[in-house]
Amino acid sequence: MDLTKATKAELEEQLKTLNEQYEGYKARNLKLDMSRGKPGADQLDACEGMLTAVKVSADTVYEGLDTRNYGVMEGIPACRRMFAELLGVPMEQVLAGGNASLTFMYDTVDRLMMFGAAGVDQPWVKLDKVKFLCPVPGYDRHFAICQQFGIEMINIPMDENGPDMDMVENLVSQDETIKGIWCVPKFSNPSGVVYSDEVVRRFANLKPKAKDFRIFWDNAYMIHDIVDEKIEIPNLIEECAKAGSPDMVFEFCSTSKISYPGAGVCAFAASPANVAWQQKYMKAQQIGPDKINQLRHVLFFKDAVGLKAHMEVHKKLLRPKFDAVIDTLEQNLAGSGAGSWTAPKGGYFVSFDAMEGCAKRIQQLCKEAGIVMTGAGATYPYGKDPKDSNLRIAPSYPPIEELKLAMEVFCVCAKKAAVEKLLAQ
Amino acid sequence: MDLTKATKAELEEQLKTLNEQYEGYKARNLKLDMSRGKPGADQLDACEGMLTAVKVSADTVYEGLDTRNYGVMEGIPACRRMFAELLGVPMEQVLAGGNASLTFMYDTVDRLMMFGAAGVDQPWVKLDKVKFLCPVPGYDRHFAICQQFGIEMINIPMDENGPDMDMVENLVSQDETIKGIWCVPKFSNPSGVVYSDEVVRRFANLKPKAKDFRIFWDNAYMIHDIVDEKIEIPNLIEECAKAGSPDMVFEFCSTSKISYPGAGVCAFAASPANVAWQQKYMKAQQIGPDKINQLRHVLFFKDAVGLKAHMEVHKKLLRPKFDAVIDTLEQNLAGSGAGSWTAPKGGYFVSFDAMEGCAKRIQQLCKEAGIVMTGAGATYPYGKDPKDSNLRIAPSYPPIEELKLAMEVFCVCAKKAAVEKLLAQ
Repeated sequence: MDLTKATKAELEEQLKTLNEQYEGYKARNLKLDMSRGKPGADQLDACEGMLTAVKVSADTVYEGLDTRNYGVMEGIPACRRMFAELLGVPMEQVLAGGNASLTFMYDTVDRLMMFGAAGVDQPWVKLDKVKFLCPVPGYDRHFAICQQFGIEMINIPMDENGPDMDMVENLVSQDETIKGIWCVPKFSNPSGVVYSDEVVRRFANLKPKAKDFRIFWDNAYMIHDIVDEKIEIPNLIEECAKAGSPDMVFEFCSTSKISYPGAGVCAFAASPANVAWQQKYMKAQQIGPDKINQLRHVLFFKDAVGLKAHMEVHKKLLRPKFDAVIDTLEQNLAGSGAGSWTAPKGGYFVSFDAMEGCAKRIQQLCKEAGIVMTGAGATYPYGKDPKDSNLRIAPSYPPIEELKLAMEVFCVCAKKAAVEKLLAQ
Repeated sequence: MDLTKATKAELEEQLKTLNEQYEGYKARNLKLDMSRGKPGADQLDACEGMLTAVKVSADTVYEGLDTRNYGVMEGIPACRRMFAELLGVPMEQVLAGGNASLTFMYDTVDRLMMFGAAGVDQPWVKLDKVKFLCPVPGYDRHFAICQQFGIEMINIPMDENGPDMDMVENLVSQDETIKGIWCVPKFSNPSGVVYSDEVVRRFANLKPKAKDFRIFWDNAYMIHDIVDEKIEIPNLIEECAKAGSPDMVFEFCSTSKISYPGAGVCAFAASPANVAWQQKYMKAQQIGPDKINQLRHVLFFKDAVGLKAHMEVHKKLLRPKFDAVIDTLEQNLAGSGAGSWTAPKGGYFVSFDAMEGCAKRIQQLCKEAGIVMTGAGATYPYGKDPKDSNLRIAPSYPPIEELKLAMEVFCVCAKKAAVEKLLAQ
């Protein structure tokens, strides 16, 4: 039934049924979590061999380098090569780091705040105002970095091809205080959108007013496909170099969702000038990343081909979970007007757009029924979703039976919130 | 022969002999490194068992926590407990981090610059001037952090009991722009000095003019004794709490020189308010440290007793190296007036004070003969040793035969520099 076209009597009837269903779920004292994009234990088990990739002292010496000792701030050459191959850039343009690209992103913004960008050297902290563009819905941890540094965030709408590039071009060409933009170009968090080739090329050809404008290209899901179709996006580092703006992009990626979120390795890739800039300031902060763990990754995955092959295992484990989420949504909400959702080809999320003004209510209803969702609003800067509509569903972590049950509860909550809203109008 | 009392003729005779010896060494094309406090491969081998402390997926789950997945920013409880026991503070006052306490120190200064101290919240970057006190000779990487952030450094002389506390008390009580001091309280880098109980208590009782003055207590060598004598210093966190200034101290330590410099774990300890302050700002930068590696440390060392027991192995390996350095200095330079040196009871360095104005020349002579030393001046802020006298000798890394040879060359260089200087006067 299309709730938006129902009569008051029909809605009241619906609400009665929904309330009964909802109370039934509540009585079961569920405790289910769909809040974070955490890999499931089965995905982590696929990496078991990495734990013993380095077994004895002799294994720690690789290509003449004792990974146990100090030094090699830029990461061990073999690990930089592996990431370079994956990202399609020369290894000299890659720094391999420790656990979590988030820290590399934060530290990069921090260095821009404190010391300014390569060749500009104007610390952002000395400016009256610094602004970042934020395609929405987006990743809450990107927004949290901006918020911590007092960087003003401007929402940029997204469609199925990526951010609204007319708006991006227009803003960056006119406003010198706009210094950056956060992008998750492949399988965007949370929408799953893959930036089109045209969008990527328009990024490369931006002519920002600010010389120190930087694109934060968080390629978090670059090989995290859940369909067999080959999905690739242009190499922005290459495209920026071609367009004469080699220093405009910082690329980040990690193995957090390939090996272990709690013990992975990450990479930063950029122009030679930007890599030199990072190293200049990293020197006072770091002696070297965990090199033994980098070596474990190299020995276990071997190369980019090995990384991609490993992701076939994840695909097989994740696909049924995404299917379960989308099937449940289809079965329960299709045509109801209570919301719409994405059917992503990869990444970690299904993005759900509830009837306007219902997201917070849905989250609250879920919570009271024992289902933890990412906070409504979290996918927007400052936690403020102007339409109170978007919710991020993370299917990866719960076992599939729990996930199905959680989604059934979610659908009841979504419909209940919609009916309540329509009745209140 | 006491060179300072020799006649010109005697000095010229000496120089001739020294030049011959020096040229002899040069002809051997040596390549020896005494520059950094790197553990020797034999010390690292002692940790081999840690590599397989976590062997299969089931091992990664400890106390109900899957260390492979996201989260637990403050470090796994077992690792915090181990450090808490070692440092003598409640585990709630400890954060366990990743590889390198240097990064934790840098990030702490960075947060003070950007956001200000707990309860004061005045970002240092907004102030006209920020100064740190630097006991000298000291650790070059501490000074590099200050230099990067534009923090002005003031030299504080040290004696065998620690920094000149009259000077410290005087300065901090009068000058509000003095915001911190770097301390390596046990086996100072490079002098090996152990702060006396009185010095530690005077630190706890400082009454700084700046409410956001912080003691950076880098307890890098807290269990790194090379003699059997029991050497302990008072617990500054406890002493500061007793003195009514619980928030004045940040303590740091790591396993860089216990397990692996390239794959260790570190800790930050402080008052509850300071720990809450760290966590508040860490949240935007970090999701969690490498928890599997923390677990490896816990399983391998078990507890503080295990950590200390492991250091007995290091002691046995390091003691002969320190003895070799000091014996060679004794045999070649005692009574010569060419320099004096420390005979530390632990830590990683022998501090050598050359005849004034000779340190740079000695380093250059060593370099030309194939011996890499830490740069003359490196033990002083801005790399400026006012007397051009101090050199840091790091005995740990080279095999003992190489070390002896390197020290023989060093002694010839030290005498040659002294004779040259005396002849030029």
